[in-house]
Amino acid sequence: MQFANSNLGMTIDIRRMGIIDLRMDRWRRVFDAMQALESGAIANPDENRQVGHYWLRDLSIAPSTIGDQISASWAKLARLSAEIKEDGWKELLMIGIGGSALGPQLLIDALLPNDSSFRVHFIDNTDPDGMERVWSNIDLQNTVIAVISKSGGTKETRNAMLETRAYLSRQGIDFASRAIAITCEGSALYQLAKEQNWLGTLPLWSWVGGRTSVTGMVGLLPLALGGLDWRSFLRGASEMDEITRRREPENPALMLAVSWLSSYKGKYPKSMVVLPYKDRLMLFSRYLQQLVMESIGKRKNSDGMVVNQGLTVYGNKGSTDQHAFVQQLRDGPDDFFTTFLAVLNDRQNESIEVEPGITSGDYLIGFLIGTRNALSEAGRQSLTITLSDLDPYRMGALIALYERAVGFYASYIGINAYHQPGVEAGKKAAGVALELQKRILAGEKVAQSDDAWLIASHLRKNGRID
Amino acid sequence: MQFANSNLGMTIDIRRMGIIDLRMDRWRRVFDAMQALESGAIANPDENRQVGHYWLRDLSIAPSTIGDQISASWAKLARLSAEIKEDGWKELLMIGIGGSALGPQLLIDALLPNDSSFRVHFIDNTDPDGMERVWSNIDLQNTVIAVISKSGGTKETRNAMLETRAYLSRQGIDFASRAIAITCEGSALYQLAKEQNWLGTLPLWSWVGGRTSVTGMVGLLPLALGGLDWRSFLRGASEMDEITRRREPENPALMLAVSWLSSYKGKYPKSMVVLPYKDRLMLFSRYLQQLVMESIGKRKNSDGMVVNQGLTVYGNKGSTDQHAFVQQLRDGPDDFFTTFLAVLNDRQNESIEVEPGITSGDYLIGFLIGTRNALSEAGRQSLTITLSDLDPYRMGALIALYERAVGFYASYIGINAYHQPGVEAGKKAAGVALELQKRILAGEKVAQSDDAWLIASHLRKNGRID
Repeated sequence: MQFANSNLGMTIDIRRMGIIDLRMDRWRRVFDAMQALESGAIANPDENRQVGHYWLRDLSIAPSTIGDQISASWAKLARLSAEIKEDGWKELLMIGIGGSALGPQLLIDALLPNDSSFRVHFIDNTDPDGMERVWSNIDLQNTVIAVISKSGGTKETRNAMLETRAYLSRQGIDFASRAIAITCEGSALYQLAKEQNWLGTLPLWSWVGGRTSVTGMVGLLPLALGGLDWRSFLRGASEMDEITRRREPENPALMLAVSWLSSYKGKYPKSMVVLPYKDRLMLFSRYLQQLVMESIGKRKNSDGMVVNQGLTVYGNKGSTDQHAFVQQLRDGPDDFFTTFLAVLNDRQNESIEVEPGITSGDYLIGFLIGTRNALSEAGRQSLTITLSDLDPYRMGALIALYERAVGFYASYIGINAYHQPGVEAGKKAAGVALELQKRILAGEKVAQSDDAWLIASHLRKNGRID
Repeated sequence: MQFANSNLGMTIDIRRMGIIDLRMDRWRRVFDAMQALESGAIANPDENRQVGHYWLRDLSIAPSTIGDQISASWAKLARLSAEIKEDGWKELLMIGIGGSALGPQLLIDALLPNDSSFRVHFIDNTDPDGMERVWSNIDLQNTVIAVISKSGGTKETRNAMLETRAYLSRQGIDFASRAIAITCEGSALYQLAKEQNWLGTLPLWSWVGGRTSVTGMVGLLPLALGGLDWRSFLRGASEMDEITRRREPENPALMLAVSWLSSYKGKYPKSMVVLPYKDRLMLFSRYLQQLVMESIGKRKNSDGMVVNQGLTVYGNKGSTDQHAFVQQLRDGPDDFFTTFLAVLNDRQNESIEVEPGITSGDYLIGFLIGTRNALSEAGRQSLTITLSDLDPYRMGALIALYERAVGFYASYIGINAYHQPGVEAGKKAAGVALELQKRILAGEKVAQSDDAWLIASHLRKNGRID
């Protein structure tokens, strides 16, 4: 089966997945659920939330008040980014984690032109040394800082904000006048931004999950400041949304979902190895790790049965990975399928010949084909996506494609793709660890454990206890 | 079971792997094989080669002529790097792929100080656009260029070298006077460097595989030019080698190998998820993907039986990944074990408190503990490695630890860790694809296939055919 769309400049070929037939009647329920979702059904029952990332790029399907809010956010973005450009800011530091980092990291790495004079940086952790390294690479005097958190309560983000503000203050640089809060209206972070008169605020919404937030302000702000066409990015996503609404076997998101299903060995699908033959798409697998594994990796299905579902994603880029783990793909366990990505447009400038009639880009495509055939010979499944160019429009389409495929797949196997109950357990347990730390700092005698040992060793190493 | 060594500043705790007993008598054969390897046995029978990466950091165990060569290479490195520093070169561009890139990328990302005035860049692919991006980030006038290939025949590396040379030439910058070949003596690349009077050559050896070459010139040159103590790096590796020679249950490499074995479900081990809670160690999982998957992922065992063995590695960093795929780890399939890495030393500068008595670094450790406990509660295995500091000495030890663990594990399950037969199939098939391209370029009629379609589409997009 193949999908080809010359407007989008995209093809998908799943013939090497070995799928025999795709019975549309089995997917009726899935399309119905997708339609209900887009019409505003409560798809995240844990948090009693609608799931509306599709509305972010098509106002015509959004509930009317929401459509107005989105439209207003675009106008605000256009104003704010024009202002920032006019005022001569040169760099953007984004402070956020998970969906508030992976999406913009992917977009900037994939799309920012080589000759861009604007640079974008990220702090996506609570690692003090990591923050120091980022600061040392920035001209902070000329940097605007976006802090991204729905509530303002995400600890890593809050810590990085406090640390960065303190660092700026030590350099005599004002924080508020360069800070933008990307947050839900009325949140603690929103209040802070208003009280301290920050440079600006941009909205997040409760009905958009972090892992699908890249077509919201989180992704649009860095695109806009990087001089990239964020409206074209939205248009690509919207067009793909329209195509993937069609109840037909050539629906490309359906083709992906069916491919993943066709990889099952017993209870679970095989792992999804993602190999873009393009340096600029190396972060795509990390982006998909979140989108796919956080959406699909669930203990219970929608009927409350324990199923421990999952779909593992890994990979970096070709042909580089051919000199690393591809040895195992060819000769090791048949526990994966490969997603090859090719970008047809080689480069901006002229190519030289590295051999008569052959360019570096020919080798790149040649290695993709070579590895694809070597894997097929060994009986390993693969599918191939090609993009004519790497630009905002195609990135929008590619991202929307995977969002929809994940939705279809989850719906088919009866998993709720739009909550993440397992994440909370770790956060709660971290709170317990910090309570234990307080007792150790207070000199209390605590029970021996590997936790207590690690906390005490860490405190000792940093001169906080003897 | 635990390993703790205060000299190395390293601990390993595998108690959460649930291992019941470790019978040393089962490992006699493995230690004997390791001893034979270190004494110069032919461990790579495909290429009739010895495997001597252990010699690179301990001349006393190297065969005498080889020891002399290594010693001479260190002297040459010291001379060459001093010269480069004196002559005021400011940046290093390394052109290499696989083991010639992943090791130095890891070292530089982990160790180069924030205030370093020397910068290191990499081209590790045959992607023309990727090369253009790297060039645009470098002051090429002040850059030395290392080209790394045993034979000079690795196409990606050769292409990147030709492209970079042509680019320099268009800028009126001479290539040879800034180029260093890291290659086997007498190779095609070595000949080229001599003929064109390059800035220098440094040796690679047939008895060191790419994935264990980081304690050779490939790793030492960027350390030396980055002002990092490469002798300390070697000393860390050598001390770990000594410790992991001991025939005792506290042997840390043995503890890792036993941990991996203890994860088996049926025929295969679970996947190894690597979560360093340190931004600077984010590339460690990519490094291990090569070291582990290329070593273990084999079709046949040493007796020639088809076994399709493998040990999948993935992961990025904590706590960032907690906001991404950790949802699946907690709630999804029990098909992995986690390797937590902690670095006790938080940062260079003073910490602020983000809450009373709590620092960002406390949160980092707290999140590690929280996720570890959340996974344990869900019955998921994990092990934890701590390093007191992140410095060349500990990186040497960490790398040597994993090299040995991979050797032990492979030897125990009867796999040859030191060849990579599956890689060749893809390279050969790429040659076939380039032959097909020639026919298409010549206007011949070729059979329809997805390969022919991709080649023609690529040629058309880049203006090479109509």
